[in-house]
Amino acid sequence: MKKIINDANLVLEDMLKGMVAAHPEYIKKLENADVLVRVDSPIDGKVALVSGGGSGHEPAHGGYVGKGMLDAAVAGAVFTSPTPDQVYEAIKAVDSGKGVLLVIKNYTGDVMNFEMAKDMAEMEGINVKAVVVNDDVAVENSTYTAGRRGIAGTIFIHKIAGAKAETGASLEEVTRVAEKVISNVRSMGMAISSCIVPAAGKPNFTLGENEMEIGMGIHGEPGTHREEIKTADEITEHLMSKILEDIKLSSGEEVAVMVNGLSSTPLMELYIVNKKVNEILEEKGVKIHKTFVGEFMTSLEMAGFSITVLKLDSELKELLDAPANTPAFKVI
Amino acid sequence: MKKIINDANLVLEDMLKGMVAAHPEYIKKLENADVLVRVDSPIDGKVALVSGGGSGHEPAHGGYVGKGMLDAAVAGAVFTSPTPDQVYEAIKAVDSGKGVLLVIKNYTGDVMNFEMAKDMAEMEGINVKAVVVNDDVAVENSTYTAGRRGIAGTIFIHKIAGAKAETGASLEEVTRVAEKVISNVRSMGMAISSCIVPAAGKPNFTLGENEMEIGMGIHGEPGTHREEIKTADEITEHLMSKILEDIKLSSGEEVAVMVNGLSSTPLMELYIVNKKVNEILEEKGVKIHKTFVGEFMTSLEMAGFSITVLKLDSELKELLDAPANTPAFKVI
Repeated sequence: MKKIINDANLVLEDMLKGMVAAHPEYIKKLENADVLVRVDSPIDGKVALVSGGGSGHEPAHGGYVGKGMLDAAVAGAVFTSPTPDQVYEAIKAVDSGKGVLLVIKNYTGDVMNFEMAKDMAEMEGINVKAVVVNDDVAVENSTYTAGRRGIAGTIFIHKIAGAKAETGASLEEVTRVAEKVISNVRSMGMAISSCIVPAAGKPNFTLGENEMEIGMGIHGEPGTHREEIKTADEITEHLMSKILEDIKLSSGEEVAVMVNGLSSTPLMELYIVNKKVNEILEEKGVKIHKTFVGEFMTSLEMAGFSITVLKLDSELKELLDAPANTPAFKVI
Repeated sequence: MKKIINDANLVLEDMLKGMVAAHPEYIKKLENADVLVRVDSPIDGKVALVSGGGSGHEPAHGGYVGKGMLDAAVAGAVFTSPTPDQVYEAIKAVDSGKGVLLVIKNYTGDVMNFEMAKDMAEMEGINVKAVVVNDDVAVENSTYTAGRRGIAGTIFIHKIAGAKAETGASLEEVTRVAEKVISNVRSMGMAISSCIVPAAGKPNFTLGENEMEIGMGIHGEPGTHREEIKTADEITEHLMSKILEDIKLSSGEEVAVMVNGLSSTPLMELYIVNKKVNEILEEKGVKIHKTFVGEFMTSLEMAGFSITVLKLDSELKELLDAPANTPAFKVI
């Protein structure tokens, strides 16, 4: 295992130090928890957004803490759900009295621990709601999941619900918008190489010399199948067909697109994928309002990518376009 | 070779299509050349900045085309200098009459072809100046270079000279600022895996199971030496010691830092590196004004990173902080 780390047991601690050192104008770390919060939190009159999960998906979620997106990100060990008390500390740190929305990716551990933290906070009189993101159309149920997994589409919930919260909207309104994004967003991914959890020291799975896996999860959970690698156009057509089977789009409708690199796939290749995504949607008469190409929800050093399509209406469009200023996601 | 492409001969064409499709609000492609220019160019009363080089370093340089940075980026084939006529087309497309500054990374082919394009444009009566970036302290002379190589420090020239150009400054003034950044910026990198040029289909170099290369170039040019991989702290100390030998920093001085991923290194590891960079500078009493952690100048799928340190004065600080709005680099 070749990794640029100091000690497999220190990766989370070292990373959080490095993040705070890099972005002191955006984030600070809670003293008693592996939680990054906005430097200016709690923010009076604003619903707070809290997300998080296992580490290894950077910039998710600490990179999205800032104006117009998250108020706190809870960081578990690599690929490991944060404990309820960590989430609880996050909730307490950012609640201004206006309430807190938890944005949970659909993994059994995350859902359980975030829900427990919600209960703990409610017993303290904090108003908390939770939404569960399940954008991955690849498989129903999976290694760590009942139902569908939550992957890169989660960033659209951060962005849009975060923008709604900035308007001073109520917790009910912010939750309604988050739910709307969840019901409108679909993703699917593929990988050509695995990732190595530092503490395990060996790849999560292995693929043959010319093999790819379609529909795997961001922790290396099995996908729909493996086959010989095809062209970027063919792979993109397959992923888009699965996404578009699941969310019907008619000519004239508008979407946002995210082509998300899992880590080792060059940006060059992500743009090549985006070329085909664009052609497919154009052919259907679907208008692309905005496209994001880059690394938004990674999987340690896995090579591969996911495509996310978000169906927009005028409310979602306006909130997507609203300003955001975070370390990893800026809208001007 | 597993790559997410359609055809090794189409990577540049497909990528440029995908980039324009993703960022139509920022960039358009010249019809007759592999050049991305600002949608609003030429911009009256503004010196234009043109950079570029071989592809495979994305987001460099097309991702930096936009307000406050570049006016045009010329894209050669993978790791191959663009031809003089391509650079010439870029110059013609963006010159508003106020003159054009070429920002060239120090590679023999780039310098030669950009200089030839400069001569061609001057014969047409366009006022052109050129600066050559040579921030890599690792080695003097190299596979494709006389003198030092230009690597990730180049982004600071784009940012700072670009901000100067936005003020309406003269070509002489923009050039002076670019030269000041070049004289104040130093970088050095390391790799733990190689990259594969699509048309070659095999790795540029190979490293042993536990081996790393120190000081290699962004095309896989040899560095100072190879050795067994060490901890992130030890590697960072070595790179920083080389950088700080070359640019003396005294207590109280201010710098900007860039920790740049070459592609396959997880963001988690880049932040772990940044932790140590921060500690080293703090110990010297050097103030870090701003830190950038991410992928700014990549090398196809190479795993590894570089560190860049830019010594600031009040002029450079103000220009670094000025707004920028490009696909890959935004300052709010």
